[in-house]
Order: sequence, then C-alpha cells, then structure tokens
Amino acid sequence: MASERIWTAGLLIIGDEILSGRIQDRNVAPIATWLNLQGIRLREVRIVPDDVERIAAAVNEIRAECDYLFTTGGIGPTHDDITVEAIAAALGLDVVVHPDARAALERYYEGRGGLTDARLRMARVPEGAELIANPMSGAPGIRLGNIFILAGVPHIAAAMLEALSNRIEGGLPLLSRTIGCHVPESEVADLLARTEKAHPGCQIGSYPFFRDGRLGANFVIRSTAEETLSECEANLVAALVAEGREAVRGGI
Amino acid sequence: MASERIWTAGLLIIGDEILSGRIQDRNVAPIATWLNLQGIRLREVRIVPDDVERIAAAVNEIRAECDYLFTTGGIGPTHDDITVEAIAAALGLDVVVHPDARAALERYYEGRGGLTDARLRMARVPEGAELIANPMSGAPGIRLGNIFILAGVPHIAAAMLEALSNRIEGGLPLLSRTIGCHVPESEVADLLARTEKAHPGCQIGSYPFFRDGRLGANFVIRSTAEETLSECEANLVAALVAEGREAVRGGI
Repeated sequence: MASERIWTAGLLIIGDEILSGRIQDRNVAPIATWLNLQGIRLREVRIVPDDVERIAAAVNEIRAECDYLFTTGGIGPTHDDITVEAIAAALGLDVVVHPDARAALERYYEGRGGLTDARLRMARVPEGAELIANPMSGAPGIRLGNIFILAGVPHIAAAMLEALSNRIEGGLPLLSRTIGCHVPESEVADLLARTEKAHPGCQIGSYPFFRDGRLGANFVIRSTAEETLSECEANLVAALVAEGREAVRGGI
Repeated sequence: MASERIWTAGLLIIGDEILSGRIQDRNVAPIATWLNLQGIRLREVRIVPDDVERIAAAVNEIRAECDYLFTTGGIGPTHDDITVEAIAAALGLDVVVHPDARAALERYYEGRGGLTDARLRMARVPEGAELIANPMSGAPGIRLGNIFILAGVPHIAAAMLEALSNRIEGGLPLLSRTIGCHVPESEVADLLARTEKAHPGCQIGSYPFFRDGRLGANFVIRSTAEETLSECEANLVAALVAEGREAVRGGI
C-alpha cells in the first residue's frame, strides 16, 4: 500500500458557557463525523474561554499542527462575541466589514428593526476572508484559508458544514467496523491486542458497556483500507467465536 | 475587595472514540459544575487521541498553566488504555502496581474469573500515586499530587468526583445569576456591554435561543462576590424593564 497523506483538523470551541458547565457542548461529535466523511481526521479539540489572548494562542498552536482549524462560538452580536477579533489578532490581520455579510444582514433585518451597530458586528471578518452561507439566521460563517469560523448553536454550525461538504481537500476517509460482544473486556484484552498487531494499519478500540443488566463491550476497528478492515473484522469475529462467544457484527 | 487567588483546573479527555465522533463526550459539563462547587475554575479542556506522546505533551502543557489537572478515559484493561503510561512518561516516573488497587481488583474479580494479567493492568499507577475510590466497578481512579485520573464512563467519573468533594483546595466559588428575556440579543447588546462595564468583577454572557417559536436570550452574570452579583442583576433587570421588556429572573 502506498503511503497516504493524512489530513488533519483541530477544533477550537470558544465559550465560557461550556467551561462553566452551564451547557454541554454538542458540536464535537457531529463535526468529527462530518470531518471523517471529508477524509479529514479530527486530531485535537480545545475548549477555551471568551478571552482574546487565550483564543489567539490556541489558534496559532492548532494551526501549527493541523491542516485545518475549525472554531465554534463567539460570532454573535454581543460584547462577549470576540472570535473574529481573536482570530484576526492571532494572524496579525485587520478586522473589516465584509460587504456581502453587511448586505445579507441588511436583508435579514429588514422588517426586524434594521441593521444596528450591534448587528453590524456580525458582518466583521478578518481581512481577506470569505463567507460561509448561513441558511438559518443572518450571521454568516467565515472562511479564511484553512480556518473555518462556525456558529456555536449546533443546528447552525451543522448547516454551515453542509455548505462546505465536499469542498475542502481531504484524504482517504477513516472507515470503521464495530463488533459487539457480551463479554467483560478484560477477558478478551489479549485477543484484541494480538488481533490489532496482526493487522497493520488497523486500530482496535474497546468500549465497555453495562446495559439491560448485561456487561459487554463494542470493539471498533478503524482503517483507511477497506480490504484490511474486512480481514481484521473477519479474524476478530472468528477468534471470538472460537472462544465460544457470540460476536455481533454492527455492534450492540 | 481584597484580591483573591483564583484556582484553576484543566481537563484532558483521552479517547479516539470522542475524536472519531463515535460518541459524544458527556464528562465536561458535570466536571465543570463540580469544579465550580469546589471553588475551582475550569480553564481549558483538551481532547486528545489514545497516543502516549500526545497525551504526555498535553499533560505537561496543562500542568504548567493550571493548579489541577483532571483526565478522563483510558484506564481500563485493554491495549488502548494507556493513560497511566502516558502520565508516568510525562512526569518521568515509573509505572508500578499499587498494592491496594491489586487487592481491590482481587476482591472484585473473586467469583468473576479471578485477576488476570489484563485485569491487573488496572492496578498500575505512576510511582507514588494514591487511589481514588471507585464504588461502581473494580478499577480505582488515581491521584498523583494535583493530577486526578478518572474513568471515562460518565457515571463512574461522577462517583470518583464524589469521593473527592471538599477534599481539594479551591477559592471562592464562581456564582451566577441568569436573566431570561424574549428579545433578539442584538437589540440589547449595548445595554449588556454597558451593564458589564458598570460592575467590575462581573462578566455577562449572552446565550440566544429560539424556542416554542419565540426568539430570546438568557443573560448569565458571573462573579465571586454575592453583593456585586446581586447589584448587577438588579440593575440589568431594571434596565430591561425600563426599555419595556419582561426580564425573567432565573432564565427562560
């Protein structure tokens, strides 16, 4: 197998409301899933407070390590929405009003009280940025090269991702197969380690559960190569069955 | 007001299953809430994959910035559970079997097939560590000075936190008050910014919602000083009412 380039992304979640425990983040899993479909691995997530310096520092650290950076949160009209300033500061860019964003907000707020100074904040972008369509409300997302600035509200972030689908470069998607088994994972730990080792390019994760009064685990095999993945799956199923266990393809 | 020491924690979530999008993290919000009750602020969260070097690097970066470090995940019996090795590597410590953890696992697995090599993995700790009781299953959590190594399964992590309640030093808890209002946040953005500025020591966050067909926002005021907080709350309510809006104490 030719060595393949792995494309990576980092995700920066911006918001005091997550760090205070007031709300539970609901963006990581859908963004991770979407990235996989684009052939991009989510390499790291960071959650930082509404603080320009902290955001800017995290932006520059993630940019140095990943092909892409996605952010969520902090692009609304209020004083605590500082993502645009912070990213501009991180990159040494000016903040400017994007004419298309201004026009979109003018249309959106026509009949809703008009475009005030606070609302105009949502048209500000780091110099040179393009917009990401927001079909749900007035404020667009922002693309600046390999940086994607999304809304914090999950259904709006998801709509913005939709607008980006198949439009950014990635590599081979990471494929996975899940096998469930009603077994304490500690009883098959060696078997899992041996199976992973015997199939280079595959990783096996073990995720225990206790459900309906029964202990068990799901084993998730991941690989970018369909053939290797199928072989590893078949061998793991066979090994479990040889030990007298029931292996449930697709997971439990 | 005397200047107060702010105690901080960082949270490191370890797991390919979160970064792949397979499961949604459910530990951040409860840990953040628990930390607030101990008078400790959650300063940063990072999610990293099951990779010794990546975990170790994040451990050392967070340790340099925060008073405490909490981790979740990667302390089970399988080959992908590498948190203990990674933290020991970060600190330059050996990994040893803790006699009390071994004894606890022996008791737990008596009549469940006994203590195998895989299960004994769960008794390993960085040299010098103490255990954190796990009332739910065999494997204990681990405390190593200001580092707390918790399970990834949310109800087990929560039980381990319970065992730590009021046992680690913190400062003043961050108090909060929430005011809800059926108003587009952009219409009160200036008012919020002015109110925050007029009450040093208070931060106001604005969290919009669209619920039951109505647009609105919750404004969360945070401060460690009860009196300042009450004054800020009263003034924000008065300012909203003066604009002819209904302000709902406690939030909507």
